Amino acid sequence: MKITLGQINYHIGNFEKNYQKIQSVVEKAKAEGSDIVVFGELATTGYPPRDFLEFPDFIARSNAVLERIRSLSDGIGIIVGAPTINPKKEGKDLFNSAYFFADQQVIHVHHKTLLPTYDIFDEYRYFEPNYTFEVVEYKGYNIALTVCEDIWNIGNENPLYPVCPLDEMMPLNPDFVINLSASPFSIMHAEERKAIVRENVNRYKIPMFYVNHVGAQTEILFDGGSIVASGNGKIFKELPYFEECVETVNLHDVMNAQQEDVQVDDNIKEMHDALVMGIKEYFGKLGFKTAVLGLSGGIDSAVTAALAARALGGENVRGLLMPSQFSSEHSVADAKALAENLGMPYDIIPIAEIYKSFDDALSPAFTGTEFNVTEENIQARIRGVLNMAISNKFGNILLNTSNKSEMAVGYGTLYGDLCGGMSVIGDVYKTDVYKLAEYINADGLVIPRNTIEKPPSAELRPNQKDSDSLPDYEILDQILFQYIEEKKGPQEIIAQGHDAALVNRILRLVNINEFKRYQTAPVLRVSSKSFGMGRRLPIVAKYLS
Amino acid sequence: MKITLGQINYHIGNFEKNYQKIQSVVEKAKAEGSDIVVFGELATTGYPPRDFLEFPDFIARSNAVLERIRSLSDGIGIIVGAPTINPKKEGKDLFNSAYFFADQQVIHVHHKTLLPTYDIFDEYRYFEPNYTFEVVEYKGYNIALTVCEDIWNIGNENPLYPVCPLDEMMPLNPDFVINLSASPFSIMHAEERKAIVRENVNRYKIPMFYVNHVGAQTEILFDGGSIVASGNGKIFKELPYFEECVETVNLHDVMNAQQEDVQVDDNIKEMHDALVMGIKEYFGKLGFKTAVLGLSGGIDSAVTAALAARALGGENVRGLLMPSQFSSEHSVADAKALAENLGMPYDIIPIAEIYKSFDDALSPAFTGTEFNVTEENIQARIRGVLNMAISNKFGNILLNTSNKSEMAVGYGTLYGDLCGGMSVIGDVYKTDVYKLAEYINADGLVIPRNTIEKPPSAELRPNQKDSDSLPDYEILDQILFQYIEEKKGPQEIIAQGHDAALVNRILRLVNINEFKRYQTAPVLRVSSKSFGMGRRLPIVAKYLS
Repeated sequence: MKITLGQINYHIGNFEKNYQKIQSVVEKAKAEGSDIVVFGELATTGYPPRDFLEFPDFIARSNAVLERIRSLSDGIGIIVGAPTINPKKEGKDLFNSAYFFADQQVIHVHHKTLLPTYDIFDEYRYFEPNYTFEVVEYKGYNIALTVCEDIWNIGNENPLYPVCPLDEMMPLNPDFVINLSASPFSIMHAEERKAIVRENVNRYKIPMFYVNHVGAQTEILFDGGSIVASGNGKIFKELPYFEECVETVNLHDVMNAQQEDVQVDDNIKEMHDALVMGIKEYFGKLGFKTAVLGLSGGIDSAVTAALAARALGGENVRGLLMPSQFSSEHSVADAKALAENLGMPYDIIPIAEIYKSFDDALSPAFTGTEFNVTEENIQARIRGVLNMAISNKFGNILLNTSNKSEMAVGYGTLYGDLCGGMSVIGDVYKTDVYKLAEYINADGLVIPRNTIEKPPSAELRPNQKDSDSLPDYEILDQILFQYIEEKKGPQEIIAQGHDAALVNRILRLVNINEFKRYQTAPVLRVSSKSFGMGRRLPIVAKYLS
Repeated sequence: MKITLGQINYHIGNFEKNYQKIQSVVEKAKAEGSDIVVFGELATTGYPPRDFLEFPDFIARSNAVLERIRSLSDGIGIIVGAPTINPKKEGKDLFNSAYFFADQQVIHVHHKTLLPTYDIFDEYRYFEPNYTFEVVEYKGYNIALTVCEDIWNIGNENPLYPVCPLDEMMPLNPDFVINLSASPFSIMHAEERKAIVRENVNRYKIPMFYVNHVGAQTEILFDGGSIVASGNGKIFKELPYFEECVETVNLHDVMNAQQEDVQVDDNIKEMHDALVMGIKEYFGKLGFKTAVLGLSGGIDSAVTAALAARALGGENVRGLLMPSQFSSEHSVADAKALAENLGMPYDIIPIAEIYKSFDDALSPAFTGTEFNVTEENIQARIRGVLNMAISNKFGNILLNTSNKSEMAVGYGTLYGDLCGGMSVIGDVYKTDVYKLAEYINADGLVIPRNTIEKPPSAELRPNQKDSDSLPDYEILDQILFQYIEEKKGPQEIIAQGHDAALVNRILRLVNINEFKRYQTAPVLRVSSKSFGMGRRLPIVAKYLS
């Protein structure tokens, strides 16, 4: 028996495009003499379709595609994910299903049992869970179908669900397991994925074919990395990261796998590749080709520009250098050097005259007040207006250049440097921004050394440095990670050896700045806890604040 | 038996404040000789605490408050909502519980069975459902405890859940039902709430005591309207809307209720009161006193200003009149008249000089281009910068003045008129904005007639009118309502008699402008489907777009 894995890049709601991709993989699988071709979870709609699932018209369009896929199944088994209308009156209106088509018939439908409803996942918002367990017989094999999370409830210290679907299916003697996934990327996730597949095959002693999505849907990134695992615990094949791939394997070879074929994981490389893909996808799927961003001479805008240049081509990334009276000499020089290294067009637009016109207009209202953060923000907002003017006039999407450390503590100006259609490094702590810069420079100097080595500064008042108001980023990032990713309380973080006043101040800053993050662009998600849809907090609250 | 209902305004995470309020109601109930005092759902934490529930430190603080409440229960039964740690390894970490304290002991804990996970609700994200049903005996009565949604799964055409908790409890012969709620306001919701309580008491023939929250938590508004219903189907008492209230009733009187005591619902009045409360609460709970907003002379900013003046006092709402070369004579005159009617301080800051400085700075980059939406947006963004400058300098929160119709079709400038810490009327369709204006004027002229009667215009280019690019708001709002609230597809809306090209264009505009709404301030929620946390859609998608 030959099985083909279709690791595909879907586009949410683009039913015709998704169908065409599926069709072309089916044709290829047929040409290779495959018996079964497998696609990802919710392949007809793309993942996550979010509240579009609540629109009956959206589901009708998915069903129409499903019918067309069924009709492709002459001479081949097709396993594909799609939503199903729940025929029962009670419960949620849909199931999240794996369809098995053969001979142009539906030979089996498995509904997902374990519905992730945490972090970025909202599946119980839409889907009714399933609690009946069957296997499907096809060409003499018993096959256990599972959807994504269905295989993740084993070996956990704190299992999220009271049931483990494959434990229920094992009495039915399946010969192998197929898993349709849409499992988003985060650093470490490729390792977790391999570990969980290994845990399954070691427990059940039968092969598993795990098919993931690749590509990006707004902020959610899919790295692919689909897996064929042998029943003896070996990973027979791991499909590449961050690219589409169609791979056909012979079940006999899988069963007798003697050696492994796995990729070595490198967190900074994967973060880099994920961000480049995320930019490319956001632009590509929205139909845009060109970006604009402010280049301050600092490391955040430099890394963002370099990633964008790799995604879109340097000639498609326009840099704006917008010096003020507070800008240092090196800020323009470093930004120019960067733009030249990347082959980016750039404009120099000094903002002093515009600033003066705001100062004049506001002087009656501001009589008797001192220069403070207001005037700093005006500078950042003038740059926001200029960036958006280029964006609007020439159709370039503005890239937000804030990093995760800044976004966490609110070190950024709303409607100023926080402007942008997407946040490229908003899920990358400052200390990792430096690592990305070194990685980008590994094959030759792209980001000027001075940009990497000078002390970080917003340059919004004379001789300003980040370290005037923030601790060293090494310390800051440790505290933030403990609070944001690890959800530790202040006492626990202090007990790790951090200064109590500092910890309380930082946690307070995180919480009182929720209002800024609420209005910030979607952030490409590379960590296990990114700002955005996976972290939901009230603005008006009084906790550690 | 006497029962006291505590309809309280909680503050999320403000444990000390929440405890003090609960304590003072307990004291009052004791003074009135009550046998039981009842509070709302998750009263210790406030509702919805969202992802704070995932922080063990947050739960520990809630538990500490719960212990203090328990110790208040000498001589009185206290029923109060709080999260409970799930002692089982499997499943979600928490329950959403109703605690019954008496004689300083826990005499019963009921965990919520039906966990709303739709629209603004995310309860299955945090809580494990409960499926064991008991009643608690107290002073000779059998009492059925329920939490909010537990009583809502009856009489529905499309029941969301496979179980109905009170059906399960009825064999245990409860004498009355207590329901701890945190059921958010929307227009029509007070009627739905009364209808569902009636449906319950008519079905079970025993009294129900329904206790709701009041106040606002960021965008979520609670109107109170707690209910005491008799087993004969009569509403014995409905507590007031939009204010805290402690009410003690005698069970004997409830059982023998002969007449009803219910408020007459008036949608526009309730929308008005809800918005005024929402503003007051946002400012009060964040510790701010003063607002700023741009006054264009148009109806949206006028209604927003009037609501803010009612919430904060006219003297605490500062208006900025920022005319450009495209502003009509009447725009300043109408805005001044409004400010004077409301007793608002105002500044007139012409933007022509600032605009010229941007024009000059951009002229090298814009060589050979024509005036278009870019230059319109620059004007809107200059106003955004000025509004934010006043906000930053004087600590006024900027109010966003966009209405729901505009936000739906993207008729607004990101980082321009879409700036603001909160959106006051972003869930009010333009046709309802007019109704609010007339309601506000009912007791005397506040909003100038000319503001209400002139054709709407953004005044960003010569002689611009909203009707140049949008259909009449009567038509637009009908189409938007069918799509947003009713989730109808294009064919269904066209079948209602609307022009096909128009429907397709409007639905496309709604979907392609998701990126703007993503970065807009929280919107006070007054409808069943508001933009924000209850409507979750991908930015990058290709559906009807």
